[in-house]
Amino acid sequence: MSTNLQNNSDDNRLQAVTTLLEGGTLQQATKMLNALRPAEIAHLLESLPLTQRKVVWELLDEQAAGVVLLDVTDEVRESLLQEMDLADIVAATEGLEIDDLADLVKELPRHITWEVIDSLDHQYRERLESVLPYPEDSAGGLMNLDTVTVRAEVTIDVVMRYLRRLGEKVPKDTDKLFVVNRDGLYLGAISLSRILTNDPDDSVAEVMSLDIQPIPADWNEREVANRFEQHDLLSAPVVDEEGHLLGRITIDDVVDVIREEGEHQFMGHAGLSEDEDMFAPVLVSAQRRALWLGINLLTAFLASWVIRQFESTIDQIVALAVLMPIVASMGGIAGTQTLTLAIRGIALGQLSANNSRWLMIKELAVGGINSVIWAVVVGVIAGIWFQNTSIALLIAAAITINLLFAALAGAALPLLLEKLGIDPALAGGVLLTTITDVVGFLAFLGLATIFLL
Amino acid sequence: MSTNLQNNSDDNRLQAVTTLLEGGTLQQATKMLNALRPAEIAHLLESLPLTQRKVVWELLDEQAAGVVLLDVTDEVRESLLQEMDLADIVAATEGLEIDDLADLVKELPRHITWEVIDSLDHQYRERLESVLPYPEDSAGGLMNLDTVTVRAEVTIDVVMRYLRRLGEKVPKDTDKLFVVNRDGLYLGAISLSRILTNDPDDSVAEVMSLDIQPIPADWNEREVANRFEQHDLLSAPVVDEEGHLLGRITIDDVVDVIREEGEHQFMGHAGLSEDEDMFAPVLVSAQRRALWLGINLLTAFLASWVIRQFESTIDQIVALAVLMPIVASMGGIAGTQTLTLAIRGIALGQLSANNSRWLMIKELAVGGINSVIWAVVVGVIAGIWFQNTSIALLIAAAITINLLFAALAGAALPLLLEKLGIDPALAGGVLLTTITDVVGFLAFLGLATIFLL
Repeated sequence: MSTNLQNNSDDNRLQAVTTLLEGGTLQQATKMLNALRPAEIAHLLESLPLTQRKVVWELLDEQAAGVVLLDVTDEVRESLLQEMDLADIVAATEGLEIDDLADLVKELPRHITWEVIDSLDHQYRERLESVLPYPEDSAGGLMNLDTVTVRAEVTIDVVMRYLRRLGEKVPKDTDKLFVVNRDGLYLGAISLSRILTNDPDDSVAEVMSLDIQPIPADWNEREVANRFEQHDLLSAPVVDEEGHLLGRITIDDVVDVIREEGEHQFMGHAGLSEDEDMFAPVLVSAQRRALWLGINLLTAFLASWVIRQFESTIDQIVALAVLMPIVASMGGIAGTQTLTLAIRGIALGQLSANNSRWLMIKELAVGGINSVIWAVVVGVIAGIWFQNTSIALLIAAAITINLLFAALAGAALPLLLEKLGIDPALAGGVLLTTITDVVGFLAFLGLATIFLL
Repeated sequence: MSTNLQNNSDDNRLQAVTTLLEGGTLQQATKMLNALRPAEIAHLLESLPLTQRKVVWELLDEQAAGVVLLDVTDEVRESLLQEMDLADIVAATEGLEIDDLADLVKELPRHITWEVIDSLDHQYRERLESVLPYPEDSAGGLMNLDTVTVRAEVTIDVVMRYLRRLGEKVPKDTDKLFVVNRDGLYLGAISLSRILTNDPDDSVAEVMSLDIQPIPADWNEREVANRFEQHDLLSAPVVDEEGHLLGRITIDDVVDVIREEGEHQFMGHAGLSEDEDMFAPVLVSAQRRALWLGINLLTAFLASWVIRQFESTIDQIVALAVLMPIVASMGGIAGTQTLTLAIRGIALGQLSANNSRWLMIKELAVGGINSVIWAVVVGVIAGIWFQNTSIALLIAAAITINLLFAALAGAALPLLLEKLGIDPALAGGVLLTTITDVVGFLAFLGLATIFLL
């Protein structure tokens, strides 16, 4: 699935704005900018280096700012908030949906948070405070309060008149209404198409669907995403422990969760966050990268320490120094493949203690086959290259050992980390290569010391 | 975003079925299985090793098979199709939506394809043949033909009566109707909530929305996904060059695209496909992994060849052999971080020729800072470890050089590959580490040869 920059509208937009900015024709830039949708503006801001980003941000209409702030990643948001004074921020929060406002409020510096909350009218503030307790990555944090509810005993006709009265007030993305009883307990859901296609004299109770199970507010956002995907939902009700309807989650928020989950795995293997701003300030990036480089330096020194234990062996057979990186890297590659498979399996909820045994067996078999194949290939090449049979046999043995270790580690490590509450997507790669480096050097140089000296 | 295996319903399901299968109580297994939704069954099948997967597949009701086949990844689908004879497959295709059937048909072996197509009633076959030409990853390939269309001149009241006549025939996930003229040209869209909230005497023309722009059938699925995300769409019309309405794309298919895109990047860096079956047959996996290991072996031997050019240098200063992996690995880590950032940028359509210059400058600055920091750190440690100042200075210089190279390569490589039509997510990592290994060894051992001998 390769990108096609030619007919990528995002790219054209970026080009247009960049040209306008450099051309200095700000009026045109402003006009084109404010013709875009918030999500498009957000996408554009993320694509711009800090200086240009600042300029564009200033050209933006105030009322758009709030939604845009929500659409950009956390890091980009911070970079934009720094450009705003309190008045701007308060203005930006006006007209945001509750769940969005809640998310935004959580990102704001403490003192500003209260200023913003005070600026809200009483009823709105109460609703905000009712969702603030839920963590951002929970169903409660994802939910919105803009549900349209009806009672089971009324007729479809009554519902239709009710909707017509609501008119524009029916929230966007409303695909179904939720049915609750007098105490606000969730009973079921009725889709708009059901309302339109059924006999107006039927009661809601007769028509409503019971198989839209409500989502508990404390569910993790990943479970919510799986539920939406597996039940093909456009929106779903969220309830508290007693089953009272609290709000609803809509697919657009779930799409963001899925997007972020994928990026988390991909960025994580390089020690980056999914929120990483491509154009973060140099010092900020440098600091974060330094941390990751430092962690990896420790593992590199560990490998070196292992090598040094065999200094005298290398001193006598320099060929070992030439070939040892091959043993380590083959193990690293093979292990990473198994690790990647396992991490995805865990993220999808498809790999757990229940079937890990099977993955382990399969990966060992795969590793076994490849260890033999590549032991032979590398052995032969090395033997010819150095005109030395014992070195050939040696590296063959070392590669066999390391590839088998790699398969084991790659399959076992993620589940182990998961159990320990450590994010495999983040720590898995570093630990794995440490293992394959150490085992690789140890096996190769160790065997050499035993058999060649 | 770490998984939480405890309250992961998918996991519980997996556990339940595994126990039932091992307990041998097939009736219960069958009962629980067929109570699940197709997507849940698909998810479960993907989590099962081949033998168990086969058993579960046989327990499944025939009518569910078709949809399940579509929900599993391509590889798992193949493993399941092998269990089915022609009759099963034909039966499974019954009642599939056109876009789904089209996707499934494309996966079938040639001879079966025609059998299936022949088994369809004439009208259905014609519709199928109208979508088959579109590639699976295009808007045309994603679209479904189950659109409900209305004419601009009729009143809302007429539309409502029309919908009531359609009744159950209104396709699921219908959030809006499409407005076309006599020639089938797309004019606009009208949402169900709009229909419900407006005056029945208004004409469709007065109420319909014009800002749902139709998607050209030849758009790439990634562009479609961006459009859905940026415009918060639940469904969108697809048109041909002249603007005739061909069908509609629904969000559930777009969610799959987004999920696959994320997995493509993550799996790609390990040379795996996003369709990779966790429990693929050992020989199949072994073969694929072998290919990737082979490619990486070439780069490993290239690095070894570079090292061998300095055999005599290492022979005189063994410490070099101990320290050289550090120089290479630091470069690899730093480069991978930049590479990862760039690949995501390209995938999101946020990095292109327009702003690559900025990324290059920023990454060079970041790399510059870190190269200095780690040159000093590694230099000092190495100097103390080996009680040798010149080696300290040497490795410091080599690390500086390699980290700067890494930043440049990490930022430039993906865009270069993209231009060449090579998928950066797949080839980027291998090429980058080749560069950082070669540059690292060359710088370290080369400088040593010049200054220490």
